[in-house]
Amino acid sequence: MAGAGGADRTGAEKLGYLGLGMMGFPMTRRLINAGYDVTVWNRSAGNAIALVEAGAKLAAQPREVAAAADIIFMCLTDAAAVEEVAFGPDGLATAAGQGKLVVDFSSIHPDAARAIAARLTTANGMGWIDAPVSGGTKGAEEGTLAVMAGGDAADIEKVRPYVLAMARRLTHMGPTGAGQTTKLCNQVIVGCAMAVLAEAARLAVNAGIDANRLPEALAGGFADSIPLQLFVPRMVQGIHSPPAGHIATMLKDLDTVIDVARDTSSPVPMSALAAQLFRLAKAALGADADALEIYKLSASQTG
Amino acid sequence: MAGAGGADRTGAEKLGYLGLGMMGFPMTRRLINAGYDVTVWNRSAGNAIALVEAGAKLAAQPREVAAAADIIFMCLTDAAAVEEVAFGPDGLATAAGQGKLVVDFSSIHPDAARAIAARLTTANGMGWIDAPVSGGTKGAEEGTLAVMAGGDAADIEKVRPYVLAMARRLTHMGPTGAGQTTKLCNQVIVGCAMAVLAEAARLAVNAGIDANRLPEALAGGFADSIPLQLFVPRMVQGIHSPPAGHIATMLKDLDTVIDVARDTSSPVPMSALAAQLFRLAKAALGADADALEIYKLSASQTG
Repeated sequence: MAGAGGADRTGAEKLGYLGLGMMGFPMTRRLINAGYDVTVWNRSAGNAIALVEAGAKLAAQPREVAAAADIIFMCLTDAAAVEEVAFGPDGLATAAGQGKLVVDFSSIHPDAARAIAARLTTANGMGWIDAPVSGGTKGAEEGTLAVMAGGDAADIEKVRPYVLAMARRLTHMGPTGAGQTTKLCNQVIVGCAMAVLAEAARLAVNAGIDANRLPEALAGGFADSIPLQLFVPRMVQGIHSPPAGHIATMLKDLDTVIDVARDTSSPVPMSALAAQLFRLAKAALGADADALEIYKLSASQTG
Repeated sequence: MAGAGGADRTGAEKLGYLGLGMMGFPMTRRLINAGYDVTVWNRSAGNAIALVEAGAKLAAQPREVAAAADIIFMCLTDAAAVEEVAFGPDGLATAAGQGKLVVDFSSIHPDAARAIAARLTTANGMGWIDAPVSGGTKGAEEGTLAVMAGGDAADIEKVRPYVLAMARRLTHMGPTGAGQTTKLCNQVIVGCAMAVLAEAARLAVNAGIDANRLPEALAGGFADSIPLQLFVPRMVQGIHSPPAGHIATMLKDLDTVIDVARDTSSPVPMSALAAQLFRLAKAALGADADALEIYKLSASQTG
């Protein structure tokens, strides 16, 4: 049955989406607008209502989503939430799973992804693709996310058309866990960029330069990036709503980087320092502060 | 007199260029090809010959360039070289200077730029624009450099058409020294990016991911940048000729960052760590190694 988008989706797989937060909500809305049959579940009902009005079906537990859908997407806070949805009392593992695929957009430890995938396949035959995303809520709303995937190549080709209704790019990086590892590389770059841009902006301000003009002055060169253009003005002007991301989320990812780096004998001094700076920022500003508020660490607290 | 480019430049200012190295040579060639009258000087004669064949006039000392030109560009290695060209026995200060402008593309300490500018104006009335560039030799060849300038606004407007024959962008950032300070912000970002991308690439390789695919997987997202696209494949494949820059040059710039940061009470922990990593790389690989060889710091040296 086609959703509100009206496209002819006869023959399309039935879809599910678990977790309708800052990422899951706009991603699901894109699936509905593209005309797909989507059954949704969220721990709290709030966000689900708007999606049901747009054409989604509401399930009471993850198991109902697994029963209704062939491909089950999810985007959850952390590995504990993914495990609960997969193996809790009314979790995915309690449904018939053969021939079904889970696509997990959550960012979790690669070891956790591998363990959950193996346990779920053993439990009910469900396939698993780890598919963390980059691009933030803006990318989720505009369908411009980059998805880095680990898993079986044929499985990934099967879900590609549906993922590309929510993302601009889906890259298969290797076996299960490879998507999560790639996301960690992404977070090394983005987390360090936040800490580095905060330094560059503070140096400019303290040396008497208008830091708001740095994006223009450096545009098109080696120092240019989306974070330079978006983050520096927000840091300097103190614009933190909506957040670029929460400090606790960035810190969680960088701590995972450090963990994987230790396991693979990879020196990551810059990432380790960035993690400590975000830990300082968390102590000073709180876990839910905007990650870009790391800039405030170097502000004068007197006067 | 028009150069080889053949454009009608009647009424244009006469130009000079001091320092025909990896940046100065292609920048001067662009001025000649644009049809400008250019008098050149270099400490050694080598590079000058090809430019003379293309239409440049060769001067025996910086003083001759100052006598022949209204606007004198230069791009030199360090502050000592700039001081020698300005105040040496046959330097710019020994020529009549009233109404003439020096545009210094070199990257030097903002304090040095301010001191040299003040001393030269006192000596012979020459105006000074500090105008360091970003974009490397490729940007110099293609005329896509970003120039960040400090100095008098009217002076900068006067040189703008000539600079834009060599660059895509010229941004006036403030009074004398502001261009150099902006370049330091650029180097904070680029130097840290090299150290961070080396970590991300090594983590990927050690965790079993094909790091050559990171640029594709992360394209268009927050982690994307020209350095991601250009530098990561070169690091992973060991392509270091031509160099992205010399380790000693990046280290010099980061040491200047740390100096200015101290003077302005600006905490720069990420830049300070990056400087130490480049210092390790210089000790291990030599001053003239490619800056991207910082990736080799984390390679196994056994087996």
